[in-house]
Amino acid sequence: MGFYVPFFYSLNSSVMKTIKEILQLEPTGQSIEVKGWVRTFRNNQFIAMNDGSTIHNLQAVIDFTKFDEQILKRITTSAAIGIKGTLQPSQGKGQKMDLVVEDITIYGDSEADISKENYYPIKPQKQSLEYLRELAHLRFRTSTFSAVFRMRHHLSFAIHKYFNDLGFFYLHSPIITASDAEGAGEAFKVTNFDLNNIPRDEQGEINFEEDFFGKNTNLTVSGQLEAELAAMGLGKVYTFGPTFRAENSNTTRHLAEFWMIEPEVAFVDLTDNMNLAEGLLKYCIQYMFDHCADDLQFLAQRLTGRRITETNGRAQ
Amino acid sequence: MGFYVPFFYSLNSSVMKTIKEILQLEPTGQSIEVKGWVRTFRNNQFIAMNDGSTIHNLQAVIDFTKFDEQILKRITTSAAIGIKGTLQPSQGKGQKMDLVVEDITIYGDSEADISKENYYPIKPQKQSLEYLRELAHLRFRTSTFSAVFRMRHHLSFAIHKYFNDLGFFYLHSPIITASDAEGAGEAFKVTNFDLNNIPRDEQGEINFEEDFFGKNTNLTVSGQLEAELAAMGLGKVYTFGPTFRAENSNTTRHLAEFWMIEPEVAFVDLTDNMNLAEGLLKYCIQYMFDHCADDLQFLAQRLTGRRITETNGRAQ
Repeated sequence: MGFYVPFFYSLNSSVMKTIKEILQLEPTGQSIEVKGWVRTFRNNQFIAMNDGSTIHNLQAVIDFTKFDEQILKRITTSAAIGIKGTLQPSQGKGQKMDLVVEDITIYGDSEADISKENYYPIKPQKQSLEYLRELAHLRFRTSTFSAVFRMRHHLSFAIHKYFNDLGFFYLHSPIITASDAEGAGEAFKVTNFDLNNIPRDEQGEINFEEDFFGKNTNLTVSGQLEAELAAMGLGKVYTFGPTFRAENSNTTRHLAEFWMIEPEVAFVDLTDNMNLAEGLLKYCIQYMFDHCADDLQFLAQRLTGRRITETNGRAQ
Repeated sequence: MGFYVPFFYSLNSSVMKTIKEILQLEPTGQSIEVKGWVRTFRNNQFIAMNDGSTIHNLQAVIDFTKFDEQILKRITTSAAIGIKGTLQPSQGKGQKMDLVVEDITIYGDSEADISKENYYPIKPQKQSLEYLRELAHLRFRTSTFSAVFRMRHHLSFAIHKYFNDLGFFYLHSPIITASDAEGAGEAFKVTNFDLNNIPRDEQGEINFEEDFFGKNTNLTVSGQLEAELAAMGLGKVYTFGPTFRAENSNTTRHLAEFWMIEPEVAFVDLTDNMNLAEGLLKYCIQYMFDHCADDLQFLAQRLTGRRITETNGRAQ
């Protein structure tokens, strides 16, 4: 079929761009509008701002003699701001370009004072992961966690792309199920019962016929059984969805809830299976080098203090 | 970084191809190996086989004088077979090519006799959806459901690709949660309690401190709250994951478990939001025309008896 659905959509106009896009431009004095959050404000002059699109900040330069002091005081770490200005080659050494501020808007204030409503508890300096864990709702604004979440996105997309390009079909296997797969682990119970008033049958046993699905159900520990059935009709399928284990193992390798990939293929042998797994790992690693090099470098430096080199792909 | 991870992997060798790939070849007598399931076997001569890669069958032609009758008897609907042969221009009208069988292997038998272990209850003729619903584990082998699942795959990939290309980050929001979002609907309870022995506190109330997460938890009704927080650091995010409603509404528009898309974007207005939603729909529709035209045509004909035409995209 030769249908054509008109599609001319971009979130970003020619003026409003992400910082990732801006940092790839040649600065020639062009007009730019950008919105994001303040990372730091130095010397009443240099605003490092970030919008989450990249690990790198854009440096905006503001002439404090031209702006009201009440505005300048509100340019604090994590304040939400919008800047209109021109992109100029930078005078400084740390960056290729400066955004010279012509107009600034404060969309949301951020206070260093704990008594204030907009108190922001994360300092620009490196914070411990344990401290950030307690601030799960704000950690998206840190370099460390934004890098992790950007990488998780790219890795997820790479997984889908790998299987899609090989002709696999993505299967959403059921999350609520009455099966326990191969007894892979202890399952969480799912119920609609009033726990203060669980229905009983004549023998005094719990009457699951009165529960939502009319039977005892739990959260899936694996989509394997459904994927096996699907592969016996579609040929090549994979699942990539949340999986659950009610095991009280509090290690860095155990999670109660995690996303798992399960490919199932008809008519292949062990060698094909090994090649598929090896191919997935190699594809994803290459994809991450191609799409997340800056985030990988940032995390390598944060965790080891060293950069990854091209020689062997390991932090030196 | 300029890392290069060697990646030379394909599931399909030059000989072993999917039926979708084979049907795109020019038949020139080349040697082909294919594995799949029998749809029909006519006149002890024509095997229509399918491997799930496409709605279309490959016609294999077998010279019954050259094969043992015991083998021919096992070529029944839904039997799993492998064929080696040569691809020849078809003598018949219904197809471009025939696979002329040189060797056939029966990997799995399929019996029409209900008393047999491998009894296969779905006939090649059109079956009602209600009947197939009772055979959820086998319906992947039907044209109707394989078309639906292939389309679901392509639609899922299109959704990820649309957001990825626009610079959005995919967020896996929590499935087990203690929040009920905006009270979007009644939630399923998730618990690790022994329902016959639920712990009580001194006041006789259920003691959720003794449950797995130390609090009362349920299945998410929406990833919106987490996505809003993520957008306030990453700029543009979307969720695409399972969502749950414990509402006893048995209509074609209500499901207890379904996959939902929730984009959240910082610094955009209502017009941007409308453009994003309209763009998603247009992109997905175009993608489906480009990737699933044959499956769409099959379903249009099954449901309406008419083909979709290029004039207006509607079944005529």
